[in-house]
Amino acid sequence: MSSYNEYFAGRRDEHLNELKEWLSIPSISALSEHKPDVNAAARWLADALTRAGMEKVEVHETKGHPIVYAEHLKAPGRPTVLIYGHYDVQPVDPLHLWTTPPFEPDVRDGKIFARGATDDKGQLFLHVKAVEAILRQEGELPVNLKFCVEGEEEVSGESLPAFLEANREKLKTDAVIISDSSLLEPGKPSICTGLRGLCSLEVTVTTAKTDLHSGLYGGAVPNALHALVALLDTLHDDQGRVAVEGFYEGVPVLSELEKADLASYNPDEKKLAADLGLDALYGEEGYSFTERTGARPTLELNGVWGGFQGEGTKTVIPKEAHAKITCRLVGAQDPQATLDRIESHLRKHIQPGAKLRIVQGEKALAFTCDPSDPMLQLAADAYEEVYGARAVFTKDGGSIPVVATFARVLEAPVVMMGFGLPDENLHAPDEHFSLDNLDKGLLTIVNYLHKVGQGASK
Amino acid sequence: MSSYNEYFAGRRDEHLNELKEWLSIPSISALSEHKPDVNAAARWLADALTRAGMEKVEVHETKGHPIVYAEHLKAPGRPTVLIYGHYDVQPVDPLHLWTTPPFEPDVRDGKIFARGATDDKGQLFLHVKAVEAILRQEGELPVNLKFCVEGEEEVSGESLPAFLEANREKLKTDAVIISDSSLLEPGKPSICTGLRGLCSLEVTVTTAKTDLHSGLYGGAVPNALHALVALLDTLHDDQGRVAVEGFYEGVPVLSELEKADLASYNPDEKKLAADLGLDALYGEEGYSFTERTGARPTLELNGVWGGFQGEGTKTVIPKEAHAKITCRLVGAQDPQATLDRIESHLRKHIQPGAKLRIVQGEKALAFTCDPSDPMLQLAADAYEEVYGARAVFTKDGGSIPVVATFARVLEAPVVMMGFGLPDENLHAPDEHFSLDNLDKGLLTIVNYLHKVGQGASK
Repeated sequence: MSSYNEYFAGRRDEHLNELKEWLSIPSISALSEHKPDVNAAARWLADALTRAGMEKVEVHETKGHPIVYAEHLKAPGRPTVLIYGHYDVQPVDPLHLWTTPPFEPDVRDGKIFARGATDDKGQLFLHVKAVEAILRQEGELPVNLKFCVEGEEEVSGESLPAFLEANREKLKTDAVIISDSSLLEPGKPSICTGLRGLCSLEVTVTTAKTDLHSGLYGGAVPNALHALVALLDTLHDDQGRVAVEGFYEGVPVLSELEKADLASYNPDEKKLAADLGLDALYGEEGYSFTERTGARPTLELNGVWGGFQGEGTKTVIPKEAHAKITCRLVGAQDPQATLDRIESHLRKHIQPGAKLRIVQGEKALAFTCDPSDPMLQLAADAYEEVYGARAVFTKDGGSIPVVATFARVLEAPVVMMGFGLPDENLHAPDEHFSLDNLDKGLLTIVNYLHKVGQGASK
Repeated sequence: MSSYNEYFAGRRDEHLNELKEWLSIPSISALSEHKPDVNAAARWLADALTRAGMEKVEVHETKGHPIVYAEHLKAPGRPTVLIYGHYDVQPVDPLHLWTTPPFEPDVRDGKIFARGATDDKGQLFLHVKAVEAILRQEGELPVNLKFCVEGEEEVSGESLPAFLEANREKLKTDAVIISDSSLLEPGKPSICTGLRGLCSLEVTVTTAKTDLHSGLYGGAVPNALHALVALLDTLHDDQGRVAVEGFYEGVPVLSELEKADLASYNPDEKKLAADLGLDALYGEEGYSFTERTGARPTLELNGVWGGFQGEGTKTVIPKEAHAKITCRLVGAQDPQATLDRIESHLRKHIQPGAKLRIVQGEKALAFTCDPSDPMLQLAADAYEEVYGARAVFTKDGGSIPVVATFARVLEAPVVMMGFGLPDENLHAPDEHFSLDNLDKGLLTIVNYLHKVGQGASK
């Protein structure tokens, strides 16, 4: 591996410049005005894969954003691995909280700052450059390799699931590799063996047909904000539990073994709170941090708005108010049933005189896989050799809706080798990626691909 | 009066064009970027007063927006009246709900549409043109007359109260005339003898030092929106009453006579609800519409916001959330004490782990005056002759904070002769002013000034 150390060290600036170029493309999949940028990010990736030496590089148009596919199938008798990632990114507001603009990548304090730096362009970039390195150093790959990269991860798009179903043979693989998660903390690698599911909805409350003056009408007509606030406050009880009837159906009861596993990597909660600027953590009573995020579902208000938000005072009674809600799901919780239960709850609790409009959004099942699978054990070995610490198998509270689909359609283990860090502000201002993990990530992937190649030839 | 009918009919287009010019100036006092426009609106008014024949026209600079003063004191032995109004306007959002742009005045369906059309440029304009008409038709005024017009009404600014205190002699008058209120309905004039007071505050809830990803942290950290929603929901009880301890202190108990007065002009509540697009009115139980708006205090959420408001989904746990709140006050309710009570209530009910920041804003006492005062009775006479219906004495739910100050500092009755209509969307999109009331308003004011002049010479 020492030759790879030198190889990557000598090309670090060149690699950083390439990554910066990709990160400069504002490929925000949620905002339709950024569609050309999303396309440009896909084309950039296709070019990078071609430069890396990948073959049959294809940009598949979809109803949504393109899927980038590439392959290198010249290791007969060796296993095949498929690398998944996404080149789309989250929106960037509130923009004023970014230290440097989200699409003008900036390297400082040993980190690269930009939207997408860690989620997921930066992590996917590691695979492109690892493959390029092996081909340039050795002229061949130790495994058969496929890339399948989408641009709708942040909007839970429908294109990739359809593509997987339609291309089972083409995508056939012995393992799916995904780098879209985090180490536990610097120097402590982990492999995620569980992800929460997701469902989303948007709620609009309307009252009068126009905004009304609080002088003329105040106290005598419904206020859409009052109605929304009262409604949203019914969604949780005093113990931080979700108060929607049937919400916890399908949530597994934790075994003592699972509790011990989760406890093994529970952070120092006081320190975590202090690091986040919080007086205290907050959540469902009776559960630890890793239990709350890894094994319990949640319902969060992601956005609430209505009425006057400008400078000064406006004595208005707003006619409409809005809320965006997402749930993280675990175990066998059904996303559709969960949305239906929330909708029923809201319709039951809306204040008389106020009208309710609900639009259901994403629906993704939770995912788990078996840490004893050899493909996962070899990944833990690869981490250990580079980081000096064996990867811990964890459950992540996030959702990558397509992971459960990959496992089901391709019938292969999914190896979630994350190189991010938990405090890298993904989905928030000042998102960044540690250059130390960029360096170690490249080496870990090179190492892992060799182990998989050798593992099969043992 | 018939000569005035002809005079105004012949100049209607000219007058409308002048008014449009004034309404085109976006004099939004709440938004600092519009300061030059607020100044321009003041200068426009000063020029219009000069053209009308007023003397000593002055634009007084203040710490905030200018005060426009003018006088015409050539009727020795006759009473003096002082006309007050405001040339500033409310903000215009949500802009997309305007049929035509708020600062491009449009005449349609017998109405002029623009921000400020009825509140208050359009109504103040009547006085300027009525005075101009009398001077052009008769060469003299039947009374001594002063204009004192401000640009901070919509922000409850401090400049006018200070100006009144500092210029008691200059502003000495037998009555203050204000046209900044409404008829009961078309053809049913009213004179407002009561206004609610006002107080305002802005609340910010903060949790973590940055927005957090709901995948990594959802269920285990406080969400500023949850904390705000739960907090705001404590402000009212299930009966629509304000649940802040001591809030109703100083609220008068209605006598049977007052109840009868308020009942005499209570609208058909079912029709009103239907007109507003509501299934039903909503408010404090046990009170009628005119009681709720004229004689009861209220606490309204004017704006609430936090988190993601864009297109699509963003799985963010917001670190901050905001609310703008105003109260309408009645009787002897003390604005400062009310703000302090709300602040105590909020601090007592904020969720542990969330931090609270409160900024107190406007503070204005409620106002009442005696309908039997001759200056008010003459106004009712003037309306009767023009509208064919005698003005009813009402209590208005709105607040013109300076009215109580005028009455106290100048020790004069305040005659609130409104020419707006309750459904003219003041403070809302598509604000407008009825051209019928523009015509009748001009005649009513001309008539009233003559009556005041004659009344004194009886």
